[in-house]
Amino acid sequence: MNGDRVTIAEIAEIAGVSVPTVSKVLNGRAGVAPSTRARVHELLTEHGYRRRGNTRKATVGLIDFVIRDLDTVWAMPLVQGAESEAAKAGVSLVVTSMHGRRVGNSHWIQHLASRRTDAVVLVVSELYPGAEEELSKLNTPVVLVDPVGGSNPFIPSITATNFAGGLSATEHLTALGHRRIGIVTGPKDVICARDRLYGYREALARAGIPEDPDLVRYGNFMPDGGENGAASLLDLPDPPTAIFAGTDQQAAGVYREARRRGLRIPDDLSVVGFDDVAVGEWLTPALTTVRQPLEDMAREAIRTALTLVHNGSAPDVRRELSTSLVVRDSTAPPRG
Amino acid sequence: MNGDRVTIAEIAEIAGVSVPTVSKVLNGRAGVAPSTRARVHELLTEHGYRRRGNTRKATVGLIDFVIRDLDTVWAMPLVQGAESEAAKAGVSLVVTSMHGRRVGNSHWIQHLASRRTDAVVLVVSELYPGAEEELSKLNTPVVLVDPVGGSNPFIPSITATNFAGGLSATEHLTALGHRRIGIVTGPKDVICARDRLYGYREALARAGIPEDPDLVRYGNFMPDGGENGAASLLDLPDPPTAIFAGTDQQAAGVYREARRRGLRIPDDLSVVGFDDVAVGEWLTPALTTVRQPLEDMAREAIRTALTLVHNGSAPDVRRELSTSLVVRDSTAPPRG
Repeated sequence: MNGDRVTIAEIAEIAGVSVPTVSKVLNGRAGVAPSTRARVHELLTEHGYRRRGNTRKATVGLIDFVIRDLDTVWAMPLVQGAESEAAKAGVSLVVTSMHGRRVGNSHWIQHLASRRTDAVVLVVSELYPGAEEELSKLNTPVVLVDPVGGSNPFIPSITATNFAGGLSATEHLTALGHRRIGIVTGPKDVICARDRLYGYREALARAGIPEDPDLVRYGNFMPDGGENGAASLLDLPDPPTAIFAGTDQQAAGVYREARRRGLRIPDDLSVVGFDDVAVGEWLTPALTTVRQPLEDMAREAIRTALTLVHNGSAPDVRRELSTSLVVRDSTAPPRG
Repeated sequence: MNGDRVTIAEIAEIAGVSVPTVSKVLNGRAGVAPSTRARVHELLTEHGYRRRGNTRKATVGLIDFVIRDLDTVWAMPLVQGAESEAAKAGVSLVVTSMHGRRVGNSHWIQHLASRRTDAVVLVVSELYPGAEEELSKLNTPVVLVDPVGGSNPFIPSITATNFAGGLSATEHLTALGHRRIGIVTGPKDVICARDRLYGYREALARAGIPEDPDLVRYGNFMPDGGENGAASLLDLPDPPTAIFAGTDQQAAGVYREARRRGLRIPDDLSVVGFDDVAVGEWLTPALTTVRQPLEDMAREAIRTALTLVHNGSAPDVRRELSTSLVVRDSTAPPRG
């Protein structure tokens, strides 16, 4: 080794890979086979690689947690998970809402750079073009938490298994004997909504139920999205006996519409939600839903960020945490 | 003036008050008549008083927002209000949950002192004995946000008009014609719960309705508290036609119990909540409730903290922000 510090070139040589490959691993970028990434990460750790300049500077004990909005039902478990993981590491969490500003705009970046931070965890579904470049100027690890399931190959990201979630919600309904299953999903251009819809389709296919396009409704993720979707589904000549809603909030809207029509849940209509946020607990009957591990996703993001701060690299560029079905009182077999 | 900086003694002399009085105003402490406080505050500002050492140091651009728990329905609007007010001032908000630790324990104080912060906003109902002294070691402004209505004369605090809230909730019910009005309030030792109960009593008195101790139930602020309270109220030989719940979460519990008994809301039972947090929106029918301005309370706390940082004193030692009744669909006249 050249002096007391191992270089990227040396790691590349030992690993038998190119320097750009080691660099990709260091920066958590895509384009490296998982086995190669694991091996390079191991070598970096083993040889105590330390990034020039950047990670040698003293840490300031702050991680920035940046979220699009704080006034959603998703925000609280995310902030909570991030805060408790940061606290465990003895690091303070700066919470920032974007208030409609674009993530990565240079004003915001300059503010961050002047105050200093050890890492940035972003909860956003999309970065505007050029944001990545702006963020790289911070010279600070960035991790994406992605509850709406976008994908960015350049930044390590934590998301949930949306496809599997849609599948388990719908399989629960087919197992109960439902064959007319409606879905009120999110906006067409939101990736997580599309992934859940694919899961729904796969469950129907597995149960041998042909898909009826009339049973699919798109809408916003709020209660009125669920209300409108349910209204048009229940207006069908052959209405569904069950509705899978894209969020717990949409499910609340489905409840409202069912109540308006004098339909009892689950006797006349089964309802499944998605997220398992507090909303579901307030609904009567208690909502069967797919749990999205928001708190764990935020924890994982903080852990990944801290790994990047301390080791200069992270083992995974993208992690999907498991969703799980939570059966409560809003689902039952269809009436014979 | 002695050189270019005015001293506390000089301000005291100009104001015609004692040095300790000026010091109380500077530290936001009680024991000063409002008119004196206003005059001293004005003189301090006018003469550009700057605290020795402490406020002369450069600010670090961070305010610490410390809350007992993040997993309550109150937490989100509080964090949101604090974040947006801090953002407006170009200051970053560090969010910390106490996770059951006591506010003011010396370990936590040391961590804060070593990292440095410009001010601390605490959302807690009670400080343990000695916390005040520990906090004073930080040599940093501290402001209390107090959604559960405790009172600490030594630290500037922001709270809500709980008495007026209880009064308006109950007056709404008496105006609708209810005379058997039950209340499910919080734990007996929680000041805000007691204040709301006094408001309830005052409304009954104003309507000429004698108070029936059988109609008062104490419980925790969660749904099961509301559920248990409602169950025992509805078991009475002469049950109430309306229930005023101490929180929206308790109201959700009242809904559940009413539903179990086949009682329709508001036809058979009127329900009023308290807080106006998201819960109320998910309930069907939508909940009539008393809005507690949590977001504004947090904003006001940040503003007060910033005033203390920049001016070294704040005009008020305690502010109560107004609650307001939000009438939705869960209240109606009692059935003839």
